[in-house]
Amino acid sequence: MSKPSIPKGTRDFGAVEMQRRNYIFDTIRSVYRLHGYRQIETPSMELLSTLMGKYGEEGDRLLFKILDSGDFLSDITQEDLSERNLPRIASKLCEKGLRYDLTVPFARYVVQHRNDLTFPFKRFQIQPVWRADRPQKGRYREFYQCDADVVGTDSLLCEVELIEIIDEVFRRLNIGCCLHINNRKILAGIAEVVGLSDQLTDLTVAMDKLDKVGLEGVLKELREKGISESSIERIQPFILLEGSNEERLASLEALLVSSTIGTKGVEELRYILHHVDTQALTCQLLFDPSLARGLGYYTGAIMEVKATEVEIGSITGGGRYDNLTGIFGLQGISGVGISFGADRIYDVLQQLERFPEETTASTQILFINFGEKEASLLQPVIRQMRKNNVAVELYPDNAKLKKQMGYADSLSIPYVVLAGSDEIKNGSYTLKNMLSGEQKVLSKEELLEHFI
Amino acid sequence: MSKPSIPKGTRDFGAVEMQRRNYIFDTIRSVYRLHGYRQIETPSMELLSTLMGKYGEEGDRLLFKILDSGDFLSDITQEDLSERNLPRIASKLCEKGLRYDLTVPFARYVVQHRNDLTFPFKRFQIQPVWRADRPQKGRYREFYQCDADVVGTDSLLCEVELIEIIDEVFRRLNIGCCLHINNRKILAGIAEVVGLSDQLTDLTVAMDKLDKVGLEGVLKELREKGISESSIERIQPFILLEGSNEERLASLEALLVSSTIGTKGVEELRYILHHVDTQALTCQLLFDPSLARGLGYYTGAIMEVKATEVEIGSITGGGRYDNLTGIFGLQGISGVGISFGADRIYDVLQQLERFPEETTASTQILFINFGEKEASLLQPVIRQMRKNNVAVELYPDNAKLKKQMGYADSLSIPYVVLAGSDEIKNGSYTLKNMLSGEQKVLSKEELLEHFI
Repeated sequence: MSKPSIPKGTRDFGAVEMQRRNYIFDTIRSVYRLHGYRQIETPSMELLSTLMGKYGEEGDRLLFKILDSGDFLSDITQEDLSERNLPRIASKLCEKGLRYDLTVPFARYVVQHRNDLTFPFKRFQIQPVWRADRPQKGRYREFYQCDADVVGTDSLLCEVELIEIIDEVFRRLNIGCCLHINNRKILAGIAEVVGLSDQLTDLTVAMDKLDKVGLEGVLKELREKGISESSIERIQPFILLEGSNEERLASLEALLVSSTIGTKGVEELRYILHHVDTQALTCQLLFDPSLARGLGYYTGAIMEVKATEVEIGSITGGGRYDNLTGIFGLQGISGVGISFGADRIYDVLQQLERFPEETTASTQILFINFGEKEASLLQPVIRQMRKNNVAVELYPDNAKLKKQMGYADSLSIPYVVLAGSDEIKNGSYTLKNMLSGEQKVLSKEELLEHFI
Repeated sequence: MSKPSIPKGTRDFGAVEMQRRNYIFDTIRSVYRLHGYRQIETPSMELLSTLMGKYGEEGDRLLFKILDSGDFLSDITQEDLSERNLPRIASKLCEKGLRYDLTVPFARYVVQHRNDLTFPFKRFQIQPVWRADRPQKGRYREFYQCDADVVGTDSLLCEVELIEIIDEVFRRLNIGCCLHINNRKILAGIAEVVGLSDQLTDLTVAMDKLDKVGLEGVLKELREKGISESSIERIQPFILLEGSNEERLASLEALLVSSTIGTKGVEELRYILHHVDTQALTCQLLFDPSLARGLGYYTGAIMEVKATEVEIGSITGGGRYDNLTGIFGLQGISGVGISFGADRIYDVLQQLERFPEETTASTQILFINFGEKEASLLQPVIRQMRKNNVAVELYPDNAKLKKQMGYADSLSIPYVVLAGSDEIKNGSYTLKNMLSGEQKVLSKEELLEHFI
């Protein structure tokens, strides 16, 4: 029989990976809680009517669809089959799909439960999402998102709070990073001032690549999009802002003076930068007028975090959206949110070797099994250890000592207790430190004291 | 636009439900860890070749199948369509399915990673599973399982440990319960002795209903299955065992003396009952010769837990299986495992009102927002609170006091701080206890001390 395998783009997580992943999730979770965010969970499956049309055509294609139970063929006509219109047939075969992100299900949740929720509603959600993307290094078909959002207020103090949350998470994880911040209104203002309001997307997509392709690359792309030389000339000062955040913001303000929306964007950004406790930040906070972010629903502040010690894409992102719940018929609910990319954060910690030591061991002591009788005699001390919250194991079989020691070793169990029946009766337990090799003979009380 | 909804049989979990669910999961998780079980996770999707044929015909029908990406029709022939053989067509439309339980994916995991694992391998896994069951009260299409298994040893100390784990979990959750235990070998022995080895399943299915239908009901069912009166006569003593566990086991031993497998079952069970620290148990431990459990793969001990204070089905179950990995080509790996039913445990705690108080509140203090300037002045004390791990919130808008107090109230936030700009400058903060209504004016230091 051939070795079993798993679907491409999915992963098994072993014990060490899980401990490390939990370290990341637990850190994010506790910082969210510290700021008053409450956890919710939504079903893995949503109705396709909830998901379709929310992520663009590409997104629709990348949704995993679930075959209806029962007679899934009942709605399929001969005409459907001869036309071979796959999206149409899929929509008749399937009424449910796996969630693609946590944002659309959250918007659905808010609308569906609006009468039971207290606004402003601060929620966090840490769950897997699924995308039928072509799998490649660092891109998976099942991965976790760790989102926090506040909806029902347009207070910019929320943006301030989310920046402090991001900073605190990366401070706790000991990852150096730079938080890039911009505002969609500033981008709209720039487009207005240079006369490209109709080509806002082309403009922002090109500007967003400044990091990667430099000024010349950006200008080249703009030319390829058919943007006139005079517009391109007018764009350059926006890309070439210099000085501190405050200085660049001041230059920008002057350039945008004729645009109402641009001026509003500058104002919002200045408020946020002013209210963040910059002194206390561990992250660098950088006003980056080229930052655009792909998602269409952002309308105010946008943020993206990059690790400073490792070459990797954005490890966290977010922004304000003025009308996310509008797609489900509930207007006028402004919100702002962030999402930590757990897989990339994992890779950063891995590369920097910054996972804390203690996350690789859970069991503290392995009691060696010298036989039926000895195993029985050890039960009281083992139970007492567990009563005091010390994680211990008794090797279940009377296997060769070498095998039992190898077990402790390969699972990074830091201590081993060796005691034959006479020793146990005399109350003398040999405790071996697996790292240093040091051995001590202890009484039962001394042994308990050592760990409790 | 109509209110959005979710697929039938699925659920949203709000903040209070999540806190309660986490209380259950965290309890189970910490007891597992205390006994040296290591967490793993497997993908939500498995290949259908892994899942199909493992849960019987009924199970195959209840698997959620995922439509292939790309041209899902490519393998479908005109013949398939005219035959309308739904399982055959489904297997051509879909190569993946959602996991149906955690046991088969675990067996697949062990076989796939056997060269990287240290045996005995003790793992726990807490993840959702999906079944296309007809939704009804207490039965969902997406629900969590909380499994622990040891594979690679046939030591009965594992059964002893799992019983102690079950007991500890329900002791911590404060749920009274009775753990029913039996052994498949005893059931096989009974069938052998009464001459019904060929009808073992009919026999055990009928006996398993003793609880619900009584002796007469069991006998009626056996007659309906065409079992002879003389066999039925011989079965009765097995059903009518009386006395303590030890007494019933002794009677059974005598009845099974001619059956090798039955005698082995009695021996195993006696070992387990002898090694469990019965004195220390909170649960009742009951040898129940009528317990059968549905799953075909059990070969040794079988267990099932019932809550004693609430009428509800089994809340935990498990047993030993001698050859689970055999389905994936790896022979000779014995294992034993248990699974906690989180949803039923939730219902029990709910009915008994045993959820601890503190699981309903996360934020400790809401700082009332009296305006732009006050909000800014409050930032230092808010940050200091969070630095000391006190979860606090600042209301993001300068809304009416009544609205802000209502927010604290509806989220069960226990304290509110009211301070205008003069008060903040003078260092006097009014702390209101939302439960008692009591108010105190505190200095900044006193306020911090109150919570840290």
